[in-house]
Amino acid sequence: MTQKIRIGLVGAGWMGKAHASALANAQLLFGPEYGVAEFAIVADANEASAKNAMEKIGFERMSTDFMDVINADDVDLVDIATPNSFHYTVAKAALEAGKNVYCEKPLSISAEESKELAELAAKKGVINYVGYNNTMNPANAYVRELVQSGALGRIVRFQGTYDQDQLLDESLPITWRHINKLAGSGALGDLGAHLLSISQFIMGDITRVNAMTETVFPKRPKSAGSDELVDVENEDIVTFMCKYANGAIGTIAADRVATGRKNYLMYEIQGTKGSVRYDLERMGEVQVYFHDDDVRDRGFRTVLLNPEHKGYSAFQPAGGISIAYNDMKILEVHELFAALTHNEPYACNFEFGYKIDRTIAAVLESAKNEAWVDVQ
Amino acid sequence: MTQKIRIGLVGAGWMGKAHASALANAQLLFGPEYGVAEFAIVADANEASAKNAMEKIGFERMSTDFMDVINADDVDLVDIATPNSFHYTVAKAALEAGKNVYCEKPLSISAEESKELAELAAKKGVINYVGYNNTMNPANAYVRELVQSGALGRIVRFQGTYDQDQLLDESLPITWRHINKLAGSGALGDLGAHLLSISQFIMGDITRVNAMTETVFPKRPKSAGSDELVDVENEDIVTFMCKYANGAIGTIAADRVATGRKNYLMYEIQGTKGSVRYDLERMGEVQVYFHDDDVRDRGFRTVLLNPEHKGYSAFQPAGGISIAYNDMKILEVHELFAALTHNEPYACNFEFGYKIDRTIAAVLESAKNEAWVDVQ
Amino acid sequence: MTQKIRIGLVGAGWMGKAHASALANAQLLFGPEYGVAEFAIVADANEASAKNAMEKIGFERMSTDFMDVINADDVDLVDIATPNSFHYTVAKAALEAGKNVYCEKPLSISAEESKELAELAAKKGVINYVGYNNTMNPANAYVRELVQSGALGRIVRFQGTYDQDQLLDESLPITWRHINKLAGSGALGDLGAHLLSISQFIMGDITRVNAMTETVFPKRPKSAGSDELVDVENEDIVTFMCKYANGAIGTIAADRVATGRKNYLMYEIQGTKGSVRYDLERMGEVQVYFHDDDVRDRGFRTVLLNPEHKGYSAFQPAGGISIAYNDMKILEVHELFAALTHNEPYACNFEFGYKIDRTIAAVLESAKNEAWVDVQ
Amino acid sequence: MTQKIRIGLVGAGWMGKAHASALANAQLLFGPEYGVAEFAIVADANEASAKNAMEKIGFERMSTDFMDVINADDVDLVDIATPNSFHYTVAKAALEAGKNVYCEKPLSISAEESKELAELAAKKGVINYVGYNNTMNPANAYVRELVQSGALGRIVRFQGTYDQDQLLDESLPITWRHINKLAGSGALGDLGAHLLSISQFIMGDITRVNAMTETVFPKRPKSAGSDELVDVENEDIVTFMCKYANGAIGTIAADRVATGRKNYLMYEIQGTKGSVRYDLERMGEVQVYFHDDDVRDRGFRTVLLNPEHKGYSAFQPAGGISIAYNDMKILEVHELFAALTHNEPYACNFEFGYKIDRTIAAVLESAKNEAWVDVQ
Repeated sequence: MTQKIRIGLVGAGWMGKAHASALANAQLLFGPEYGVAEFAIVADANEASAKNAMEKIGFERMSTDFMDVINADDVDLVDIATPNSFHYTVAKAALEAGKNVYCEKPLSISAEESKELAELAAKKGVINYVGYNNTMNPANAYVRELVQSGALGRIVRFQGTYDQDQLLDESLPITWRHINKLAGSGALGDLGAHLLSISQFIMGDITRVNAMTETVFPKRPKSAGSDELVDVENEDIVTFMCKYANGAIGTIAADRVATGRKNYLMYEIQGTKGSVRYDLERMGEVQVYFHDDDVRDRGFRTVLLNPEHKGYSAFQPAGGISIAYNDMKILEVHELFAALTHNEPYACNFEFGYKIDRTIAAVLESAKNEAWVDVQ
Repeated sequence: MTQKIRIGLVGAGWMGKAHASALANAQLLFGPEYGVAEFAIVADANEASAKNAMEKIGFERMSTDFMDVINADDVDLVDIATPNSFHYTVAKAALEAGKNVYCEKPLSISAEESKELAELAAKKGVINYVGYNNTMNPANAYVRELVQSGALGRIVRFQGTYDQDQLLDESLPITWRHINKLAGSGALGDLGAHLLSISQFIMGDITRVNAMTETVFPKRPKSAGSDELVDVENEDIVTFMCKYANGAIGTIAADRVATGRKNYLMYEIQGTKGSVRYDLERMGEVQVYFHDDDVRDRGFRTVLLNPEHKGYSAFQPAGGISIAYNDMKILEVHELFAALTHNEPYACNFEFGYKIDRTIAAVLESAKNEAWVDVQ
Repeated sequence: MTQKIRIGLVGAGWMGKAHASALANAQLLFGPEYGVAEFAIVADANEASAKNAMEKIGFERMSTDFMDVINADDVDLVDIATPNSFHYTVAKAALEAGKNVYCEKPLSISAEESKELAELAAKKGVINYVGYNNTMNPANAYVRELVQSGALGRIVRFQGTYDQDQLLDESLPITWRHINKLAGSGALGDLGAHLLSISQFIMGDITRVNAMTETVFPKRPKSAGSDELVDVENEDIVTFMCKYANGAIGTIAADRVATGRKNYLMYEIQGTKGSVRYDLERMGEVQVYFHDDDVRDRGFRTVLLNPEHKGYSAFQPAGGISIAYNDMKILEVHELFAALTHNEPYACNFEFGYKIDRTIAAVLESAKNEAWVDVQ
Repeated sequence: MTQKIRIGLVGAGWMGKAHASALANAQLLFGPEYGVAEFAIVADANEASAKNAMEKIGFERMSTDFMDVINADDVDLVDIATPNSFHYTVAKAALEAGKNVYCEKPLSISAEESKELAELAAKKGVINYVGYNNTMNPANAYVRELVQSGALGRIVRFQGTYDQDQLLDESLPITWRHINKLAGSGALGDLGAHLLSISQFIMGDITRVNAMTETVFPKRPKSAGSDELVDVENEDIVTFMCKYANGAIGTIAADRVATGRKNYLMYEIQGTKGSVRYDLERMGEVQVYFHDDDVRDRGFRTVLLNPEHKGYSAFQPAGGISIAYNDMKILEVHELFAALTHNEPYACNFEFGYKIDRTIAAVLESAKNEAWVDVQ
């Protein structure tokens, strides 16, 4: 039976369009019984953006005031794709109005705001979904299965980094990413949060952290080509040691000026019976080692994603065929729809988003104080 | 300005749905000015399939007779996604009716049929597009640019293979793929044709071939679980040497029982100034070597696909992010739409399809006669 | 008990010194009970070379006439490290004198000469060893074990190439390698012979071949810097298809102008239950795939060489530690010594060398005649 | 001119033999003018070991008292290959006797002892060499050149780990490695010291550290097969953050129970203009990225070691050919000999060894106190 889900989108920029594309494709892949997106209303403070999105995506109407989305009687799901610093305000209004909410990551730009949202969502009992799409990656689902089934034995060590070099060029001007009241933090919140979502998904809670940050380019032009330099307020690189509730230790980093790295979200997990390594630049393969394999024949296996790995079969009937980074967003929308129409469980609720944000807060405090800090 | 393109789809199976998904997504990525697909009519001999496709994809009407598509006044583009052995009949009828045609690869299952179609298409002056989607891969577009710009020097050697192990299991029953009147050939037409399309696209015409074929499992169960074994009529593996019009030599293979290989379309091109290596199991990276790099520092470069490579920027604003195998189909539809609405040129016309099919015919003849055979 | 083996070396160039180094190191690794080399006499037509080798290596005496080595009463082993075109003459004389012979690869530069030597060696009953050192590589020993134990199932396909770019530069002058009466053939005898030795060792006899050759740079300067160009007499690239006595098919190539490749001796073997891939540029790792591994977890395993692989433990007590290309020569000397002092069997006798040379002859004939040729 | 160097070896175990092999091979590769080792005397508390070494290696005489080596008039170089905990005592005696000293790594098992040795060596003015052989690796020499020439720009970040799984098996009994008075520390001193030597060689001094240690298997059998468990006194894993005098930040780890890793000494260095990655399990290749390469064509280059990289040409005339881990020991002996006979400079003197040991001490203190610690 077709299940119509009427969408109210707040934020009509690049991310808003990416959400709309995923919302449209979920039906093609999973069928109308899981949900058919109807594009009711889009709001953006920038009128031209709102109009453009309405026309290109096919929303029925538009507004420059996000409260028109919150207050719309015909909206089933408020989809938040605004700049990060507005997530809190819009999500809070949507929850208070009793709406189901789909919020792009991060949940907010501070642990306090995220905590408030998580508590409010729990109280309201609505769907509260944060778009940590990497948890949808069939590779990460596979690794989680290996970890949680005990196939790797007792988990001992997690190492990961998310490195890009998009901000390497010193002449790139200051952006919202460099200003804390807009971004909350630097590489940590932007890139590190993705890695933390995987860590949370696979390893569970982090209990203690000890961090170091570095701003490689402490000043940037005020605008493109400008001679006036202004302060970069947050870290280009963060690296921290941590301890997990499951007994493992970890080292985690994020770096937005990592020369040569484009989308190098890499992690290794070591257990007493096996190990894995994954690198998002080679999205389709997972390195897996089993200590119990015959000594003569053992080695890291290059496992190509295939239909045995959760999510993959939505895209391809056979293994080894490339799926897209954006396909994780489609799987995310499907999980959200399954929650809405079939009451199925989902991992990335606001509590999950809050756990990441409180870890981020502890890391920032540790870096500032140069000491171990308990999470929360 | 929105350009509506009314689609008449023949064939409502897996491939028909893949086409429909690409047709729908092209607009999302490239905008309505390049074409908005309207799903007019779908035909499939199997009524249930036709009905299912109509409902899921949103076609306005359906039929069990493909001539209802050919004869429909409101159809701008006949999209052929039938089993391979029907391509010729449907394409011929569409051309004769003066319709634009979009035919899934291969153009037909024999060189004679394909030649006839190519000549007819040229005479009719309609759009005639064959869906060799690998030519849309930004990686292959990049390699073509390296070859054609002279960056690799004089081209000396091409080596490639397309290996999968989907038919490795001896207990898998006979299918249409094993029967020549349905498939034309075995691994050669199924897998090898994709590699040949890349070879044609990058290297140009093959002039001579010398081939060897092998049927590793010469008998298969008549049906799943059956004790009755029937003959496999065509090759599990083909390998051939060849000469190119550009002076290079080549070795090409295809293998549908290649243990461990999932989607291993791999090729290397060696020129006097540089070399490349590409492997579709790692779709997002191309290995490139430049002889003129400093001796101390030179080596194969792992180039991650990025917006400098044609087609990539439709999907991502920055490099190193995974795009999907299916995204090549979207780029294909975009090229087709651009031809329809903007009169832009395209590579994969029926003449291109015929060149591949005549090479296939020469390879089969060579393997039979155990001798060098001229192409055409 | 110490076993002294008195060495008579013919040829005091780079290869002679490499032999001497291996002869000296074998004792250090395997102990004096397997053989202690004593350097009795060295001969080289170039007196300065002979003298230099005597002094550096520590030979007791020298000569400019190789017959002084052949006729020396105190020589247990004649070690032939001359240019290839002299192998036949020296080896024949040594055999006729009843000496044990250790001949660097190739056995000779023609199948006829090699056949004569193999027959003479068999008749004389002396040790007759050809230095195909790649058969000593623990990686190749491991692959042979996988093949011969049936772990890979029925063997279906062999693919290999040996590519280097040492002769890529067009301005490099003509050398003995380019002249057939000195080299016998081009890339085939120089590089291809190494790959053929691995193929012979692991796969057994080749029965039919079908070849193509290419001379990329048909003329080269007469000497360094000269404007006078002379003909290159043999192939820069050879590629051929073949059939094996074990039922498998193969494609084999060698290329001395392969831009970007330094020591790319690569081969893949595909069986119905498993596959392997090996590349000498990554000498320490073998890629192995087992079809029977769990579908979710299977993939090519990167097996690092370790003490389970024959020969490795002579060098290292634990896996994953790099051994040298030259270490294969030490293992070769050890096998030779074990044959001399302990009567142990060895693979690379003159019959083995002849099999490679007759395959080379068939390949050359096939390329010339553009037809399939039976081996022998 | 032949330069005889008379060797007095203290310690006749596995490491002593490895030293002897390197001492013998240096002459073969570099010629007698740089030094010819003469094996004068070997001492080992275990008489059988001493005798065995004397016979196998060819020492003129032996002793069970190392002072017989120290006091021998005919010894030019005291070579210390004892267990680590004896290095201090033997080295101190040798220095006091005015002997040249070649000490296997580590210099001692405490910063205090190493400081004393470094100061004494400086005062005595003799050759004082510590065997940190990884500094001899042509790959590391190449990276150092890239860093120090500015080719990578300003150095920003160092990341490295040395992981093995040799002690993974819980049933392996306690050894000297687990006892602090014999080993000083666990994975840090055993494996981490090698990585620190590379870090010191390439990056220079570390100024501050912040560490965490973990003992994964805190108890082990008293002996093989025993039911009695005894305490492991030191860390299986160490990981620490650090700051360099050159302004870079770092994260460094060592792990002796890292499932699946055999010889995974891996590091990455990131500069503002380029980056490198190296992994000792693929000893022959260095990954290098240059930001200034054309955007379309740039990527990490897989640079195969070749004669442009210092030390390589001693072994091979052309690139891409595997050299051995043990070959670094031969290069080390050559550097030592060149210092002895030609007065050439060398990097790994006792001061260098002390810098590593004081860093180790700071790391251990930091882990204990859970705080940042200044080095020295």
